[in-house]
Amino acid sequence: MKNQPDTILLGHGSGGKLSHDLITELFARHFDNDILRQQSDSAIIENPGSQMAFTTDSFVVDPIFFPGGDIGKLAIAGTVNDLAVSGAIPKYLSVGFIIEEGFAYKDLERIVITMAKEIKKAGVKIVTGDTKVVDRGKCDKVFINSSGIGILDKKNVHISSGSHIKAGDKIIINGSIGDHGMAVMAARNDLNISADILSDCACLHDLIQSALEASDQIRFMRDATRGGLGTVIAELAKGKDFGIHLHEDQLIISEGVRGMCELLGFDPIYVANEGKVVMLVAAEDAQSVLAALKKHKSGTNSTIIGEITNDHPGKAWIETQVGGKRIIEMLSGQQLPRIC
Amino acid sequence: MKNQPDTILLGHGSGGKLSHDLITELFARHFDNDILRQQSDSAIIENPGSQMAFTTDSFVVDPIFFPGGDIGKLAIAGTVNDLAVSGAIPKYLSVGFIIEEGFAYKDLERIVITMAKEIKKAGVKIVTGDTKVVDRGKCDKVFINSSGIGILDKKNVHISSGSHIKAGDKIIINGSIGDHGMAVMAARNDLNISADILSDCACLHDLIQSALEASDQIRFMRDATRGGLGTVIAELAKGKDFGIHLHEDQLIISEGVRGMCELLGFDPIYVANEGKVVMLVAAEDAQSVLAALKKHKSGTNSTIIGEITNDHPGKAWIETQVGGKRIIEMLSGQQLPRIC
Repeated sequence: MKNQPDTILLGHGSGGKLSHDLITELFARHFDNDILRQQSDSAIIENPGSQMAFTTDSFVVDPIFFPGGDIGKLAIAGTVNDLAVSGAIPKYLSVGFIIEEGFAYKDLERIVITMAKEIKKAGVKIVTGDTKVVDRGKCDKVFINSSGIGILDKKNVHISSGSHIKAGDKIIINGSIGDHGMAVMAARNDLNISADILSDCACLHDLIQSALEASDQIRFMRDATRGGLGTVIAELAKGKDFGIHLHEDQLIISEGVRGMCELLGFDPIYVANEGKVVMLVAAEDAQSVLAALKKHKSGTNSTIIGEITNDHPGKAWIETQVGGKRIIEMLSGQQLPRIC
Repeated sequence: MKNQPDTILLGHGSGGKLSHDLITELFARHFDNDILRQQSDSAIIENPGSQMAFTTDSFVVDPIFFPGGDIGKLAIAGTVNDLAVSGAIPKYLSVGFIIEEGFAYKDLERIVITMAKEIKKAGVKIVTGDTKVVDRGKCDKVFINSSGIGILDKKNVHISSGSHIKAGDKIIINGSIGDHGMAVMAARNDLNISADILSDCACLHDLIQSALEASDQIRFMRDATRGGLGTVIAELAKGKDFGIHLHEDQLIISEGVRGMCELLGFDPIYVANEGKVVMLVAAEDAQSVLAALKKHKSGTNSTIIGEITNDHPGKAWIETQVGGKRIIEMLSGQQLPRIC
């Protein structure tokens, strides 16, 4: 960082020499690959297959550093996971930074280094990017957009729409819920809570790949991010000719997450995760998929948490531990702002 | 907008019911197409050719509405143009909104409608999107990221890198410079300047396409956005074995732009454009490309403004109207913050 001042200046977003140096000395250095090295207006990429998945996400998490991750890890994992849950193999990412004037260069560098580590793990390349700087007080430290392209095999095209879902399909999740949301909440300066909660933020491409290898009857996948498991399930049921039945006693919620949720009045099924995928699998393949997931670091606590039913079409509900039933609806207001 | 409150709430970014309604009633309604309608985590798209161009840009312009356009038009045109100058045919876009809590719904709607008009003109589809809302004072009204994918014919792959540039190539620009930057500056609340300057913000895909049809010897293209014509030229010359020679008397600068630049101390060659492409064309094809450009609404004032030389390799310079020479360097600080 020989030419870089300690903080980001408006000039870093001007397209002039400061922008150029920032790109060369920080982004291009850490994200280096043959395509990015061209530094042209668009990345030129080989056609990655007969069908593709294309996705975008902006990240505005507050705080930008939290136990278990940071905004950079979130930006890579979020986009990699959006592609992976569509049944695609993530290949190329773009990153767009919006940075507040005065943001510490070393914090930006730390985020970029995290991102560089994550893309290596995920086997993806950042091939194009953009940096804007806004005046002090006009954004909050840094926001990151990442868009991504993945290769999609024709046999997996139905996964993102869920068009093959059938009554009897089992619902699997790869571990505990609510960790990311509560880790971020605990890290907020205005809450004086000390909880040993780590965000579950992780790239799930390899976990998902091994499930796809274990079964060709994976009917649907979605990562349970903003809005949590509850929102995925409620959205999935809406307007469909099937119902969704979850078993509360099968959900894994850590003591820390449960305690914080009680304290703050949150329902853990609506709390964001950043390393959890909800999978619907044909009943006869559920055990083999479960076994495949459990072999992975991000899947050791995978569990079957429910099933698709013919009852109550269009509705999702959870059978509580005391034997009651509770409808899972979409949240009408905010749950946790700026959780990702 | 039957279910929408007058202003954007934090809950619009929660992933819950408010988010869902905003997507359905605003974004999906105006951007509607077969792919977006799936509303899955990733858009599933057909492979658009053997090679692709992929690009991203974030837009943070201040003010968001200005004479000749708004942030939405900018977001579509910017990404369409980045693809087009790579020699690609723009096909699919993503859009990511970051919205400040309290932003007027009608302003968001106005921006979305502009975007919908622009994508229709450009023949592209918005296939995937994301919305985040941040608390009041943590961003400035609205920021938009747009990423895009275009089909790239193998014969145009060299255009973005400029690897075929040769001494003698002519440099063409499709009209006056500095209009966008000065239109935005004039629109800023804190400047009490009334100038009749319109931003040149426009999608250039069809203008560029007709140039590509007129000649198979287009050697390089770039849109002269942030940092203006000067930055494009300075970046292009850097480290190359050729020099770039511009003629000041060939540059078109409107009276309004010239006046504002003098008043504010800006050099118009570094002022942002949003509808100008710099083209390098083999000398023998320069006239036919010029003729093709002039037939377009966005190209009526196209001019040859310089040429590639064997002199002064790695340098760009401009011959001034009084016969002097001035080196064009990359700007070291900021020129105009938040101009796009």
